[in-house]
Amino acid sequence: MSQKETKTKAHRRKVVIIGAGFGGLSAAKTLCGAPVDVVVIDRTNHHLFQPLLYQVATAGLSPADIAAPVRALLGRERNVRVVLGEVERIEVANRQVCANGRVFDYDYLILAAGARHSYFGHHEWRRYAPGLKTLEDALDLRRRILLSFELAENAMHPIDRSRYLTFVVVGAGPTGVEMAGAISELARHTLRQQFKNINPLEARIVLVEGGPRVLPGFDTKLSQKALVHLGELGIEVRLNTAVSDVDETGVVAGGERIASATVVWAAGNEASPLTRLIGTETDRVGRLKVDSFLHPPQHPEIFVIGDNAHCLGADGKPLPGVSPVAIQQGKWAAKAIMNHLRGKQPKPFSYFDKGSMATIGRHAAVAQIGPLKFGGFLAWLGWLFVHLIFLVGFRNRLFVLLQWAYAYITFRRGARLITGEVPGFFRHQKAPPELSGQEGATVQ
Amino acid sequence: MSQKETKTKAHRRKVVIIGAGFGGLSAAKTLCGAPVDVVVIDRTNHHLFQPLLYQVATAGLSPADIAAPVRALLGRERNVRVVLGEVERIEVANRQVCANGRVFDYDYLILAAGARHSYFGHHEWRRYAPGLKTLEDALDLRRRILLSFELAENAMHPIDRSRYLTFVVVGAGPTGVEMAGAISELARHTLRQQFKNINPLEARIVLVEGGPRVLPGFDTKLSQKALVHLGELGIEVRLNTAVSDVDETGVVAGGERIASATVVWAAGNEASPLTRLIGTETDRVGRLKVDSFLHPPQHPEIFVIGDNAHCLGADGKPLPGVSPVAIQQGKWAAKAIMNHLRGKQPKPFSYFDKGSMATIGRHAAVAQIGPLKFGGFLAWLGWLFVHLIFLVGFRNRLFVLLQWAYAYITFRRGARLITGEVPGFFRHQKAPPELSGQEGATVQ
Repeated sequence: MSQKETKTKAHRRKVVIIGAGFGGLSAAKTLCGAPVDVVVIDRTNHHLFQPLLYQVATAGLSPADIAAPVRALLGRERNVRVVLGEVERIEVANRQVCANGRVFDYDYLILAAGARHSYFGHHEWRRYAPGLKTLEDALDLRRRILLSFELAENAMHPIDRSRYLTFVVVGAGPTGVEMAGAISELARHTLRQQFKNINPLEARIVLVEGGPRVLPGFDTKLSQKALVHLGELGIEVRLNTAVSDVDETGVVAGGERIASATVVWAAGNEASPLTRLIGTETDRVGRLKVDSFLHPPQHPEIFVIGDNAHCLGADGKPLPGVSPVAIQQGKWAAKAIMNHLRGKQPKPFSYFDKGSMATIGRHAAVAQIGPLKFGGFLAWLGWLFVHLIFLVGFRNRLFVLLQWAYAYITFRRGARLITGEVPGFFRHQKAPPELSGQEGATVQ
Repeated sequence: MSQKETKTKAHRRKVVIIGAGFGGLSAAKTLCGAPVDVVVIDRTNHHLFQPLLYQVATAGLSPADIAAPVRALLGRERNVRVVLGEVERIEVANRQVCANGRVFDYDYLILAAGARHSYFGHHEWRRYAPGLKTLEDALDLRRRILLSFELAENAMHPIDRSRYLTFVVVGAGPTGVEMAGAISELARHTLRQQFKNINPLEARIVLVEGGPRVLPGFDTKLSQKALVHLGELGIEVRLNTAVSDVDETGVVAGGERIASATVVWAAGNEASPLTRLIGTETDRVGRLKVDSFLHPPQHPEIFVIGDNAHCLGADGKPLPGVSPVAIQQGKWAAKAIMNHLRGKQPKPFSYFDKGSMATIGRHAAVAQIGPLKFGGFLAWLGWLFVHLIFLVGFRNRLFVLLQWAYAYITFRRGARLITGEVPGFFRHQKAPPELSGQEGATVQ
């Protein structure tokens, strides 16, 4: 770094942070007021509390309840600049990031661009089985789920009706389990008795998992507990079942075709393609291999964090793609930069695992915190508490609590809106002709 | 009706209500439990509290705060069926309504399909100057308004910056006045000090009105009061100024081109095109001329209400397109049907004017209630109270009050999210090339 250092001696060092998710935001907050100039670049204008996206997708919360404008969180800091933009190039040799045709020089780069869904090479499935990474994803799923009940109500033929009332969730990690549970509650409580031609209780929810148990990241006992809870909610769980096809009529799981109008993809992640621009080795899911100082090889000026990093934990396995890892790495990277400016060497990064939890419906959850492993209502209360504490910004925390309290007491869901374009809505109403023949029929 | 009556003597009478806005919902609620079978058809799944749409467009409220699912409001009623669908045909001779290829017979039809924006024959303006009728409109405007500030922050050239910071509202009725006031508050309070390259206080808000005063439906004294309030909020008001062109670079108002990236259309309404399917006389804005029993000529089985009706008031002028008229007409039509079934003749419809109000920013409003005409903070409190009382559903009322209280105390707006497709975002960042030359420049 000697050449660069000479060149910019008179100037404050520049830190570019790509991504304002858990990792990037945590780094930026730690650098607030530090003697560096920080630029935070994100494609969206908001920091998103992804663990609650499934609540937006199932009409329990509004987008604004789980998202806060990055500018509202950081914009008033003197040394932080927030840029809405999409990164197109990272030129590691020149230490420059290019976003929307504009170039940002850096002395330090923190890459925190997050992950997206992986369809195991089947990009064409994305259209029929949206994932749950962005607000747009969640609103798309909300539209599809609510519309399915409406289309079932309108359908003339039992085959159509049952296809509209079948919901398939692919992948039984926390997101898949939470989605399946929330769809079940929507059908069993919220929508109950509000239809004339269908009974939402007839909704069939199938959770498909390739591995041998649900919540594979958790202790096996908790996987069993979760399986029991899922059964109580009427969810069909299919373990050791691979999905071999997804199209507009449904999925093929374990060789069997399941006719379904709503498929949710919660099966796998891959790192943002920006990781490839660094030019060093990546793993199978696109994460950059980093040392215990979060640097990719030969780049002590670059920190790779969160879902972008393949970083080994104390057990020799790569750290999981969960928010506490990203938050701790973001904070660590920011402190390492401050140490470096003072000529100090940081200690290697080490992850402190505070535990993990997943919720299953209205009052069940599983949690493992160190040696403690428990399920049921207590775990659910713990889940509620932890998620509220970590929700960014006072407003969101208060409102989410109120809405949950309201939903809990009344069983209602406050955001049951079908908005946005509904491509194929009117097409679906009439098609596919081979399955129904409702056109022109008097149905009243 | 004798033929039909004979035919369906054994059956309960069928009422089809087209539209679940203020008028349709009021009619449907009145018919709950009555000895008729009711079908309510709406294109959306929600009843929308349109008077607060401007709050969604300016990031103060979330869509779910001002919208309630029609099914949640009516779905549990035994004699009411809710249908999500778009009406394609009304066959008055056969007494049938066709929606999404399905046919609904009726004995009584209540047409309450509402209004849309009128661009005075310039449909091409719609693309550049969205109106404010649906949740999609409001989210589109929210996206445009928030994005304009971001693009101004990113802009390299002062000409671009000023275009992004210029907001033009066309039409100074209540919607236009409320939009202009809310954009001003967003710039002056919410976004203040959150940008590095721009000062949101520089935002220029131009309110263009073709007539000689703002709020033309109100008393002239209140128009003057409103004009003063608008001036205090830094809004440029141009009266007697016609808009002759709108395109992506701005508007031409009174012969002068105003460069603006965000134009809001609040200038005129026209009735839903469904009114034409009845086949009787309509007025200039597509409303069906009805008698004092809300019937179009020759159709005692059809009631036309709200924005679909050209109905003369006591003063001989057509009733205005405001929610109290629609609500009272909906209720009246429902009662007229019940009277008819009992063989009673109803009294002609007469509108009871409870007054009208419009808000201008954070704590000013104007109100006229019978002989009372007043403005300022008291009117604003009245506005707040009336809007809360009329918001449909307990959940919305409580949450909206809380969010307003929060926004009032903190100046923050809870829903500052740019979501959905942002067509032209990346295009705009680089274009138009003749106005800027920011590509590839180092801006840090």
